[in-house]
Amino acid sequence: MRMVDCIEKKVNHEELTHDEIQFIVDGFVSGEIPDYQMSALMMAIVLNDMNEREAADLTLSMMCSGDTVDLSDLPGVKVDKHSSGGVGDTTTLVIAPLVAACGGTVAKMSGRGLAFSGGTLDKLESIPGVNIGQPIARFKEIVRKTGVCVIGQTGNLVPADKKMYALRDVTGTVQSVPLIAASIMSKKLAAGSDAIVLDVKVGSGAFMKTVDDAKRLAGLMVKMGKHLKREVVAVVTDMNQPLGLSVGNALEFREAVQLLSGQLPTGDPLLEVCLLLGTQMLLLSKLAKSDEEARGMLQQAIDNGAGLSKLRAMIHELGGDETLLTLEGMDKLCRVKRQVPVTAEKSGYVIGMQAELIGRAAQVLGAGRETKEDVIDPAVGLIMHKRVGDPIQAGEAICTLYVNDEKNLDDAISTMKEAVQIGAKPDHVAPMVYAVIR
Amino acid sequence: MRMVDCIEKKVNHEELTHDEIQFIVDGFVSGEIPDYQMSALMMAIVLNDMNEREAADLTLSMMCSGDTVDLSDLPGVKVDKHSSGGVGDTTTLVIAPLVAACGGTVAKMSGRGLAFSGGTLDKLESIPGVNIGQPIARFKEIVRKTGVCVIGQTGNLVPADKKMYALRDVTGTVQSVPLIAASIMSKKLAAGSDAIVLDVKVGSGAFMKTVDDAKRLAGLMVKMGKHLKREVVAVVTDMNQPLGLSVGNALEFREAVQLLSGQLPTGDPLLEVCLLLGTQMLLLSKLAKSDEEARGMLQQAIDNGAGLSKLRAMIHELGGDETLLTLEGMDKLCRVKRQVPVTAEKSGYVIGMQAELIGRAAQVLGAGRETKEDVIDPAVGLIMHKRVGDPIQAGEAICTLYVNDEKNLDDAISTMKEAVQIGAKPDHVAPMVYAVIR
Repeated sequence: MRMVDCIEKKVNHEELTHDEIQFIVDGFVSGEIPDYQMSALMMAIVLNDMNEREAADLTLSMMCSGDTVDLSDLPGVKVDKHSSGGVGDTTTLVIAPLVAACGGTVAKMSGRGLAFSGGTLDKLESIPGVNIGQPIARFKEIVRKTGVCVIGQTGNLVPADKKMYALRDVTGTVQSVPLIAASIMSKKLAAGSDAIVLDVKVGSGAFMKTVDDAKRLAGLMVKMGKHLKREVVAVVTDMNQPLGLSVGNALEFREAVQLLSGQLPTGDPLLEVCLLLGTQMLLLSKLAKSDEEARGMLQQAIDNGAGLSKLRAMIHELGGDETLLTLEGMDKLCRVKRQVPVTAEKSGYVIGMQAELIGRAAQVLGAGRETKEDVIDPAVGLIMHKRVGDPIQAGEAICTLYVNDEKNLDDAISTMKEAVQIGAKPDHVAPMVYAVIR
Repeated sequence: MRMVDCIEKKVNHEELTHDEIQFIVDGFVSGEIPDYQMSALMMAIVLNDMNEREAADLTLSMMCSGDTVDLSDLPGVKVDKHSSGGVGDTTTLVIAPLVAACGGTVAKMSGRGLAFSGGTLDKLESIPGVNIGQPIARFKEIVRKTGVCVIGQTGNLVPADKKMYALRDVTGTVQSVPLIAASIMSKKLAAGSDAIVLDVKVGSGAFMKTVDDAKRLAGLMVKMGKHLKREVVAVVTDMNQPLGLSVGNALEFREAVQLLSGQLPTGDPLLEVCLLLGTQMLLLSKLAKSDEEARGMLQQAIDNGAGLSKLRAMIHELGGDETLLTLEGMDKLCRVKRQVPVTAEKSGYVIGMQAELIGRAAQVLGAGRETKEDVIDPAVGLIMHKRVGDPIQAGEAICTLYVNDEKNLDDAISTMKEAVQIGAKPDHVAPMVYAVIR
C-alpha cells in the first residue's frame, strides 16, 4: 500500500477502504507517512469530503492510536457531554454536577480554551488549588465517590488527533465536517463513556458557521456512534451571541454557581441549554423516561442545592477551595482593578452580535491564550448587559469589561463596539435550539 | 503575510494575488515555507484550480527562482519546442536539425525519460561519445556554429520547479492544468528562447488523458506566453498509440535518421507531426510566410539531406561519433541479443492501444528508468508493426521486442498483449492533430 495512491483515490472522489484508513493513521502516527503527504490528503478530504463509513473508520483508527480509558468498573451508565466550543458557554460546570445530583455518572475529560472559545479546564483552574491533572485511578475514585469528575485529558489518548490537529491548524484543513467529527468522536470514545451528548454550536462564535454544516456534523457523529456501538445524541444550538452573559474564567464559573443557586430566571439561554443537555444525559443514562421527567429532576436539583453540592464536592476532591463556591466567594474571585463599561453610540435595538469578536475581546484582556504559552488571568473578561433583540439607548452600557492589565483595553473596547450591531428596528432573533438529533 | 491564510484563500475559491504567489514561491524555495504547507496548497490548487493571471504569476515567480539563460547575443529569432511527453515521440531529434537547416536558430534544453515516456537526452546518449552536459558558453558556441544544439538542463534553472515537482510526485498533486502549465512554461522561459512551439499530447500514452484537458493546458500556456511577452503556439496531438513505430532510445534515434533520410512515406504520423511542429517553428522564426511555404522548406531539407547534415554536425559538436548517423550505422547501434516477436492471438482489426503500457513494456526491457538510479540500455525496446485501424491475422506479429536482458521478457510480452486491443470490426481512429492554438 502506498500513501500517494490513497491520496490519488481521494482526489478522484473514490472511497478509501478500512485498511487504507488504518494504514494512513498508523503510518502518520509512527512517522512513516510524512507531514507533507498527510496534509495533502487532509486537503483532499476538506475539498472532496468523506462518507459516513470512511469517517467512522477514521474515528476508530484514531481512537486506537493510543491509550483508551476503561470505565467499565464504575457503576451505572457513564455519560459524557461534549460541546464543539463557543463563547460564554459554561454548560459543563452546570450539567456535570447536576446530572450527578440526579443519580448519573459523569466521568469527563475536558479541554482548554482555543483561540476565541473558552475551555472548561481554564475555568476549573480559576478556583485556587484545583489540580486538573489527576491520574486515571484517582479520577475514577472521585467519580465513584461523588458521581462526577472533570479533569484534563491524561495519558497518551488519541495521539493521532494531536498530530493531525497540529498539522490541520497550519495547513488550512480545519474546516472539514468528517475531520472535525473524527477528532471529536475519537477522543470521546477513547475516554470510555457509554453514552455521549454532543452540543454542536453554530454561528458567529462557533467553528460551524452555517446551520446546514452544524446539522451535518451532528448527524454524522450520531451515525458514527451507531457504527461504533455507543449511544449518541446531538443537539444543534445557537452561538451567534454568547450563551451566558459572562465571558471569562472566574466570571463564567460565577455564572454557573448563580445558575446552580437558582438565581437565573426561567427562559435564560444558559439555563435552557443546560436543561436541554442535562435532559438528554438523563435519558441516555436511563434515569428518566421522558423529557418532562428529566427536566423536573434537574430543576429540583437546582432548587434544593444538590447540584451545587456536587460541584463543591468535586472541587474539593480536585484539591480546590470549595468554600469559595458561594455567591459571595465567587464575587471575591472576580475582583479586578477596573470595571469599564462599553457604551452604545446610538439608540435602537441590538440586531446582531459577532460572538467570535466578543470572545476575542475577553481574550485580549487576558481571559484566553493567543499561544499555548500565554498565562490566563482568571478574573478578567466581560459581562454582557444586552442580548440580541434588546432595546438600547445611546450611552447605555452594552457590557462591562473586567480589567487588570490595561495594555489591550482600547483594543477590547473597539472590538466590543464592532461586535455588537445596533439597528433602528428589532431584527430576526435566531432560535436557541435548531435540532435534536438521535 | 502567512502561508496558512494563502491556503485558506485557495480553499475558499479566492484568487491569490501576485504578491502572495511571490511570497509562496520564494518561501518554499528558501525553506521558510515547509513541505506540508506547500503540499496542502498544491492540493487545493489541484481541486479548486487557478485562473490565467494566477498561473502566469506562478510561472514568473518560478522562472525567477533561479538562473535564466540569456540567448540575446545569438543571431535571429531563437525558437524552442516542447512536448508534454509521450511514447515513440522522437520529434525533437528530427525538427531541431530540420529547422536549423531551414535557417532557424534552435537552442534547446531537453529532459530525460519519466516513467513510461521517453526523453530526448537518453536518446542523444545512445550515440557513443555524446556529452549532453555542456556549459552555457559552449552550448551557445555550438548554436552559433551549427544553428542547433540540444543539451541537458544546466545550472540552477528554476529550482522552484524541481522542488515543487518532487513534492507533487509523492502527494497526488501532479494532475493540475495550471501547475503543469507553470512547470513547463517557467522552464521554457528561463531557457531564453524568443518563441516556443508546444506539443501537448493527449491520450493513453500522455499525461493529459482528455482532449478538453489538453486543449485547456495548451490554451493556458499560449495565454501565459502573451502575458509574459513571448510568442507561443501550441498544438494538441494524439498519443493514444506511439507516434513513431520505434520505442527505445537507439531505435527512436534510428527512426529519426530514417525520416531525415527520406525513408518515411507521406502520411506517416511521426513525419506529419514533425512537419506540423517544424512549420510552426519556421513561422514563429519569420523564415516562412505561410504553412505551405514552411512545409516545402522542411520537405526540401529532408530531400536534400540538409537536416541530417545538421544533426550530424550537432552530434559531432557534442562529442559524439557522427559517422554512425547513417542507416547502416544506426542498425549497428540497434543490435541486440534477441529479437522476439509478439503475436496476435486472434484475427481482426487493431481497435485500440494503451500507449502507456507500450512505453512500460520498453521500460521493463531496459529502455527506461523506474528510479533515477536505473541504467538505460540504449539498444533495447520494441518496433511496432501495426497501428490502430490496421487489419491483423492470428499469429501475425504485433511488434518485435529488442531484448538483451531476458529477466523481464515475459512481463514485456504480456504487457504488449494487454496494450493492443483486437476487435472483429475496425473502430474509430483518433485524429493525429486535434488543434493548433495561437
